[in-house]
Amino acid sequence: METVVSGIRPTGNLHLGNYFGAVKSFLQMQDEYNCYFFIADWHSLTTHPHPENLRKSVKTILSEYLACGIDPEKATIYMQSDVREVAELYLYLNMNAGIGELMRTASFKDKARQQLHINRDSNDDSDVEKEIFNEGNKHSVSAGLLTYPTLMAADIIIHKALKVPVGKDQEQNMEMARRFARRFNSTYNVDFFPEPASFHMSAKAIKVPGLDGSGKMGKSEGNAIYLVDDEKTIKKKVMKAVSDAGPTEPNSIKPEPIANLFTMMEIVSTKDTYDYFNEKYNNCEIRYGDMKKQLAEDINSFCAPIRERILDIAANDDYLNRVARMGAERASENAAKTLREVREIIGFRAD
Amino acid sequence: METVVSGIRPTGNLHLGNYFGAVKSFLQMQDEYNCYFFIADWHSLTTHPHPENLRKSVKTILSEYLACGIDPEKATIYMQSDVREVAELYLYLNMNAGIGELMRTASFKDKARQQLHINRDSNDDSDVEKEIFNEGNKHSVSAGLLTYPTLMAADIIIHKALKVPVGKDQEQNMEMARRFARRFNSTYNVDFFPEPASFHMSAKAIKVPGLDGSGKMGKSEGNAIYLVDDEKTIKKKVMKAVSDAGPTEPNSIKPEPIANLFTMMEIVSTKDTYDYFNEKYNNCEIRYGDMKKQLAEDINSFCAPIRERILDIAANDDYLNRVARMGAERASENAAKTLREVREIIGFRAD
Repeated sequence: METVVSGIRPTGNLHLGNYFGAVKSFLQMQDEYNCYFFIADWHSLTTHPHPENLRKSVKTILSEYLACGIDPEKATIYMQSDVREVAELYLYLNMNAGIGELMRTASFKDKARQQLHINRDSNDDSDVEKEIFNEGNKHSVSAGLLTYPTLMAADIIIHKALKVPVGKDQEQNMEMARRFARRFNSTYNVDFFPEPASFHMSAKAIKVPGLDGSGKMGKSEGNAIYLVDDEKTIKKKVMKAVSDAGPTEPNSIKPEPIANLFTMMEIVSTKDTYDYFNEKYNNCEIRYGDMKKQLAEDINSFCAPIRERILDIAANDDYLNRVARMGAERASENAAKTLREVREIIGFRAD
Repeated sequence: METVVSGIRPTGNLHLGNYFGAVKSFLQMQDEYNCYFFIADWHSLTTHPHPENLRKSVKTILSEYLACGIDPEKATIYMQSDVREVAELYLYLNMNAGIGELMRTASFKDKARQQLHINRDSNDDSDVEKEIFNEGNKHSVSAGLLTYPTLMAADIIIHKALKVPVGKDQEQNMEMARRFARRFNSTYNVDFFPEPASFHMSAKAIKVPGLDGSGKMGKSEGNAIYLVDDEKTIKKKVMKAVSDAGPTEPNSIKPEPIANLFTMMEIVSTKDTYDYFNEKYNNCEIRYGDMKKQLAEDINSFCAPIRERILDIAANDDYLNRVARMGAERASENAAKTLREVREIIGFRAD
């Protein structure tokens, strides 16, 4: 079985968009690949979380992934910070990663602009460099942010992964990971690390629209339904979703907010329900209040069993610790194997 | 007992200058402090050594330090690469180390100029920055070199060291180490890492002159006598040392090359011998050939027992491995204790 590695950012609760956009693919992957899913708690340090928040969000994301059906017997799910070998490989990769090439990545520039409080839409490519060296700017960009791509590469190649499911925004970092793998091989004249291929889930993934009338579901206020939301919250959010006065001509093209409601319905409701409201729309008889009530019910039916599992799992610290430990052991064992060989190749004591 | 940490760069054989300039202080420190001496094999990666050379130089330096009298029962002597905890702390420190502040250190600028093949005597402080981002420059500077100060800080504070014996050229990096320790404390609102003080050995250290007529003993060709040099080599080197035609006036001031020979004699010979040749010099009766012959003999008498121990120890891989393992265990135990607390503070699973 080919090895797949994927990192999960511990940034709050999972919403329906995450579920259909990524988690569902993970559920499929765990049957088809040797999967390592890690919660990227080291990466999250680039934004300096409060310790209590960090602990909470790691626990949340682990509970929710498990509740969605990630099976710790099938996939190795672990905290990044539990596989200490990654930090050592990160150090080695830093020794062969150029400052210039790291600074030129688009994701670095974007985050650096944010952290330095400079215009994020700037087209002046040297603005980040200038501000980094500007002692007058009281904001700074950390070496941790600069070396994000080497840490990401270490996460991946420590397992000698062949495939990494990523979104388009990570494509450049994946290119870096391949480059660092190749560079290690050529520096030491070995054929050791395979080059991990990007593996785009977007083809299969369903894009869930947001509730605020445009775009996809994200974390912005009033836009997302979280898997953990209770029935009342779901209903309240759906009833407040953007709609309009309704069509005045039969068979009108649906404006985006309305199309979004139908897309949601297509995802969570039965075909009959969808067809019923679609017909009402086409006949200009639709009452959005009714439609939303039905949609809220169907979303709740979908979420309820996951929500219950989330609440069960999150309350079961023993189980969570057991899963975390098991994942840490399995991932560390595999990582230690790679690292032993890496140390041998570089010239360090391997055992 | 206060904790002292000192790193040893694995760069070739020890010479007399190293012995009197540093190793002798280490011998004294191991009785007075809780010492951690590490061979900085991770740091050495910034210059990309060949694996075989790296292995050899680490073994050499360990053998030679032991032969000089570093006692693995008194001091903890270990390879940096054997204390994996340091890599993890390095990662954490990177998250709070600004790229700008790292780039502004003099030692970074100096090494970066070297690696980028630009004029090392430049006074244009922005030349390094420019060249780092110059895609046209086929040389590059690694993130490893940039983060040298965070790795050095991790080496020191992982043992909560209070004192670090350093030369003047490391003073800025020590200031960084203190800053990173303080910054960790203030970021997490703890009083955890003490600030390590620099501890200048130069006051007590004896500066050994080189054999090439000027300056101190270093690694340049024909300038140094290595502790491992055999009698014949020592004699050959000393006989070739720069001298002159001899004084023509009684009680002349000694020109540098001659003063150097006398300084060497002061270090390795008896007072009688020194006085004898000093008188000859003052009477204008000195024959440098005789003096050098005597000096070579006395250097050999000093080096011979160390040389024998070096050869014995270097041939005893079992002993070397035992020492390395013991050091690794002791240093790792202490490092793991610190790291457990660090992980707890940051918000990671500590056990």
